[in-house]
Amino acid sequence: MRSISLIGDGKVQEDSELYKVAEEVGYLIARKGYVLVCGGLFGVMEAGAKGAKKGGGLTVGILPGYETFSNPYIDIKIPTGMGQARNVLVISSSDIIVAVGGSYGTLSEIGHALKLGKEVIGYRTWEIEGIKNYETAETFLSYVDSVI
Amino acid sequence: MRSISLIGDGKVQEDSELYKVAEEVGYLIARKGYVLVCGGLFGVMEAGAKGAKKGGGLTVGILPGYETFSNPYIDIKIPTGMGQARNVLVISSSDIIVAVGGSYGTLSEIGHALKLGKEVIGYRTWEIEGIKNYETAETFLSYVDSVI
Amino acid sequence: MRSISLIGDGKVQEDSELYKVAEEVGYLIARKGYVLVCGGLFGVMEAGAKGAKKGGGLTVGILPGYETFSNPYIDIKIPTGMGQARNVLVISSSDIIVAVGGSYGTLSEIGHALKLGKEVIGYRTWEIEGIKNYETAETFLSYVDSVI
Amino acid sequence: MRSISLIGDGKVQEDSELYKVAEEVGYLIARKGYVLVCGGLFGVMEAGAKGAKKGGGLTVGILPGYETFSNPYIDIKIPTGMGQARNVLVISSSDIIVAVGGSYGTLSEIGHALKLGKEVIGYRTWEIEGIKNYETAETFLSYVDSVI
Repeated sequence: MRSISLIGDGKVQEDSELYKVAEEVGYLIARKGYVLVCGGLFGVMEAGAKGAKKGGGLTVGILPGYETFSNPYIDIKIPTGMGQARNVLVISSSDIIVAVGGSYGTLSEIGHALKLGKEVIGYRTWEIEGIKNYETAETFLSYVDSVI
Repeated sequence: MRSISLIGDGKVQEDSELYKVAEEVGYLIARKGYVLVCGGLFGVMEAGAKGAKKGGGLTVGILPGYETFSNPYIDIKIPTGMGQARNVLVISSSDIIVAVGGSYGTLSEIGHALKLGKEVIGYRTWEIEGIKNYETAETFLSYVDSVI
Repeated sequence: MRSISLIGDGKVQEDSELYKVAEEVGYLIARKGYVLVCGGLFGVMEAGAKGAKKGGGLTVGILPGYETFSNPYIDIKIPTGMGQARNVLVISSSDIIVAVGGSYGTLSEIGHALKLGKEVIGYRTWEIEGIKNYETAETFLSYVDSVI
Repeated sequence: MRSISLIGDGKVQEDSELYKVAEEVGYLIARKGYVLVCGGLFGVMEAGAKGAKKGGGLTVGILPGYETFSNPYIDIKIPTGMGQARNVLVISSSDIIVAVGGSYGTLSEIGHALKLGKEVIGYRTWEIEGIKNYETAETFLSYVDSVI
């Protein structure tokens, strides 16, 4: 099995556009036969995992604490107890990283990803040289669909 | 999904008794519906993953480097780049830890497991207070079978 | 003792402006009585540690591998074996982070720093909201001098 | 500078024999010109750091959380936020590890140390093959004195 990691805004609500786009990304990842890896918590992570389950896929959540507390769509929970350092693991787990929105945690993950030579595909996320960043949901999802 | 972590001797050969017992443990873990988590490499880790696949289960390998190099029975690879510190993750991922043989790496994992309050079930591994240790394959497998 | 962490371009040569500015930052950190924490390797890390030693200070290098290989100005070496995840430790060690130039590794550190609520002062580094970024060496060093 | 790491029982009280022996170890480490590295918290860690300061030495505490909370004898605090995984760093920082008493956390550190090929010198700690273990404070301190 191969995986794709989804990172991004951990605070978006279920009725927001970013949530819907992330859910669609998760669905695509699953339909293409990939495992979805994420940080296991909320917002974009929850949306992507929800979409992946709709697509019949498998989801992995790499959690910051030792507890198995996660969003309800995570199949395999990896509690790490490593706090911020767990961000590195979300990145090192996959060759392709998809970023939807996101704040400073996402920024750290983008840095690790580009340092490790991963492909990063972004939607309304940090404008960083080296990321393929898309401004409309349509072109973004179409590109994700084409490369995975 | 819930998981059980298998730790132990990373150097045992396919024709050894420890390899066969670990393979049987992996099979049991899968048949009972658990995901098998291990360090993803060889010896006991390979045997357990092989058994789990025979049992129709799912296997996760938490790897020490950034490469996806692992034994051939690992479904989901988590390359960490964290070296020894990846041992902590093998332990934190499950509530029950099964140890088959093992040297100093296994000892570090047993320490982390007992510190984190995990149940550790052992076969021909370190004699440490707090582990349930079995001396015959039959009683060991029977106990594993009864608690998982 | 309190520390300040210096991050930035690991490839700048000794005759570059960034090297000279980083050396000056290290000197200031030492003269103000702080310990300098860095990643222990080259470029800006070496320059800062060199400056700190000139200023009579103490330097800590948090290294990615298990070897004690570092630049020659590191007093206390912390080999971690954790690869990229050691970046988190460079950040978590101090309340004030100074960034001089830098590429993707530095970007990951800036993300972790801002996520953890650290103050980040930058010179010719990533333009990220939340960093105090200075465009001339004079204003940068003057600001560093004023806050530490 | 070179360092020696002190590990052991984090709960011993100031009036206990283990505390006194650990304090003596810290004093020796400092007098011989080494930096003392420990987990930064209490019991044996506090005793060793206290002894090192009496000996005019320098102490480093590698802490499990992101807070700088530590015993009062730590000069350089490395908060890691990595929980149990910080144990690996206490070990990887030095070539010689001294263990005084200790429970499961210490056991994990002994495992990591022996795996990484470190020399481990113990007093009333885990009986593990590969450790030089001493049964009287006198022979233990005399041996520590002779090798560092």
